[in-house]
Amino acid sequence: MTKPASNLQIDSSRLWDTIHTTAQFGATPKGGVRRLTLGPEDKQVRDWFRAACENAGLDVQVDGLGNMFALRRGRDMSKPPLGLGSHLDTQPTGGKFDGILGTLAALEVIRTLNDAGIETELPLCVTNWTNEEGSRYAPAMMGSAAFVGDFTVDDILGRKDAAGISVAEALDSIGYRGDLPVGAQPFSGFLELHIEQGPILEAEGKTIGVVENGQGVLWYDGRITGFESHAGSTPMNLRRDALATLSEIVLAIEAIAVELGNAVGTVGEAVIASPSRNVIPGEIAFTIDARSADAAILAQLDERIRAAAAGIAAKRKVEVTLDLVWRKEPTHFDKTLVGAVESAANALGYANRRITSGAGHDACNLNAKVPTAMIFVPCKDGVSHNELEDATQTDCASGANVLLHTVLSLAGVAK
Amino acid sequence: MTKPASNLQIDSSRLWDTIHTTAQFGATPKGGVRRLTLGPEDKQVRDWFRAACENAGLDVQVDGLGNMFALRRGRDMSKPPLGLGSHLDTQPTGGKFDGILGTLAALEVIRTLNDAGIETELPLCVTNWTNEEGSRYAPAMMGSAAFVGDFTVDDILGRKDAAGISVAEALDSIGYRGDLPVGAQPFSGFLELHIEQGPILEAEGKTIGVVENGQGVLWYDGRITGFESHAGSTPMNLRRDALATLSEIVLAIEAIAVELGNAVGTVGEAVIASPSRNVIPGEIAFTIDARSADAAILAQLDERIRAAAAGIAAKRKVEVTLDLVWRKEPTHFDKTLVGAVESAANALGYANRRITSGAGHDACNLNAKVPTAMIFVPCKDGVSHNELEDATQTDCASGANVLLHTVLSLAGVAK
Repeated sequence: MTKPASNLQIDSSRLWDTIHTTAQFGATPKGGVRRLTLGPEDKQVRDWFRAACENAGLDVQVDGLGNMFALRRGRDMSKPPLGLGSHLDTQPTGGKFDGILGTLAALEVIRTLNDAGIETELPLCVTNWTNEEGSRYAPAMMGSAAFVGDFTVDDILGRKDAAGISVAEALDSIGYRGDLPVGAQPFSGFLELHIEQGPILEAEGKTIGVVENGQGVLWYDGRITGFESHAGSTPMNLRRDALATLSEIVLAIEAIAVELGNAVGTVGEAVIASPSRNVIPGEIAFTIDARSADAAILAQLDERIRAAAAGIAAKRKVEVTLDLVWRKEPTHFDKTLVGAVESAANALGYANRRITSGAGHDACNLNAKVPTAMIFVPCKDGVSHNELEDATQTDCASGANVLLHTVLSLAGVAK
Repeated sequence: MTKPASNLQIDSSRLWDTIHTTAQFGATPKGGVRRLTLGPEDKQVRDWFRAACENAGLDVQVDGLGNMFALRRGRDMSKPPLGLGSHLDTQPTGGKFDGILGTLAALEVIRTLNDAGIETELPLCVTNWTNEEGSRYAPAMMGSAAFVGDFTVDDILGRKDAAGISVAEALDSIGYRGDLPVGAQPFSGFLELHIEQGPILEAEGKTIGVVENGQGVLWYDGRITGFESHAGSTPMNLRRDALATLSEIVLAIEAIAVELGNAVGTVGEAVIASPSRNVIPGEIAFTIDARSADAAILAQLDERIRAAAAGIAAKRKVEVTLDLVWRKEPTHFDKTLVGAVESAANALGYANRRITSGAGHDACNLNAKVPTAMIFVPCKDGVSHNELEDATQTDCASGANVLLHTVLSLAGVAK
């Protein structure tokens, strides 16, 4: 026996148009988006999103860190809503799908239910989490991390960007410090659709990734203090070169991640103090990002990266400090919700596989407090955090359909 | 038989005071100097220097690139003057002796001759060369390079700093674009006193370095184009990491210089485009400085650095370009003048040795057009291009005395 809503499909063209409408806010020449959290372009997209939610009949609330919650009433308002969404901020040279697809597909699910006149048993709540990217403010996934209590609100409000502007000041400057207490919005479950940001689904010809796990993450701030001296007259054996030291550290991290397997390690930022072409670099600030889906490997990454840095520092007679600014253990998503995603993908006939998320997501934070699952769709060449990030209209629509039918199965539809 | 001036000594206290007076223009908290060429602090020191030269009875002229020439009349004005001097600009975090000692010791020689009422046969010309350091504008030793015809004046005037300000604009803004045609000032010879900027004299307990040679120099601008992607979800084997590429290049240059011997190699600048801690670096601009006093080794450096960069690029599937922006062959100073410096050091009883200059100097440029020699004095721990650069009053005075007596022997003193 078929449920009344079993053939329902989202409107692929409307979803695609919506994605391209929001891509105008911070559009870059190469077709990407630069929409740093809490900046003017983020305000533009937030204003647009609030209006679109209100037009769809949702009641929008904003919490004290700018997280946005758009509620659709359910038949049983005594139950917490089922959450669905992602984020609308981007990397400095980001794409138009990362986060955005998940938030706008959630809106598309609501629009589709509205058009079909379907009321769900549970209320639904479309969310936009603040500062998922972490480019302007650390930590990444800031809004959802504070939501689940990993950080206090005061701690987060006081964080500053490179220009010295605090999160509190940035929120106030765009008018998105809301009244809702952070963490107060209840959820009965949470679903996030996202592009894979990796190459696996595309390589295997799958349409849907049923996300089982998320990688654990280590973030370090590093500093190397060698000694500045003349590049022409300082013999090679008397140098204390900060950049040569960093070079060994970068290659050591690469080798450690390869050797451990099921791990990645990256130095993403490195700034030489007072650089000059004929001066040996004396001081460098840098960052490390290391990840694994396996808790034991994550612990080994931490140990071996620290040991490598210390050994290189001793050999080169320079000082190296590593400050662990964020550590997150691997995520294991809720088995029931993961099963619901898989059933929806199978029912819709989409080729799918279980997968681990290489990137961190708001859903990984949410999972600590709320049963959570994620849905992945392929992205071109596995590329993300890049203006060339791309996904097909068909894959985006397929992901949104899996989101729709997972929602229908979890939130309950009237017979 | 002793010449009348054979016991003449410069005024050590006056030289020391003069050095510390000019160190105020651009003084840094750690006791160094930040006096970038043609900036406001450079104007301050130039104005001070012009006034001091005029007070010493010298006639100051400025050429079209801001090179300053302060003439003391000789008995035979039909002969070109003997030049002596160095530069007054510094590195971004430089010291108070590099270049400055040579310019102010030249002034001190003039003051000493004035006090003793000594007239020389040849006129003398104290010089301050523009932009020896090369930090704000490439090439280094810009003023003296254009003076000897290595670059056209128009080429140099059009060079821009990181803020887009041309040399012409910078000269005009501080009022130091003079009327004297560049290269017009004749010299019968040129002498430059300088701190060693290396550790050899100190290590061997020598007071004076009699500089025979100067290292040849290769300067490259490099660019690495890999591919930006997500640090969490891009597997290690699918990365095209620009920073890991740079790291291999840095360590390869280090290894090549060590292996060749009589060579140094340094990456002094490296800037990641759009850095973010969770993005694999996609693009890096960097510089290489490689030197040797041996022409054959310099040629091998060029060949091996290029081959290493190409090999690393191919292995990592990234693009690496190296643009040779400056090449200078090793310098061999004038045997007669080098001998005169050595004789003066011996006559004064200073422990001395023949030495190669690790750093480039205006004297290396001058040598192509004018018989030239250099005098080195030790600096603490061999440190230069650093706020901690230091030299003793005694060593500075000894160097100035060698300069004085080399001038007396070459310029001719009335019997």
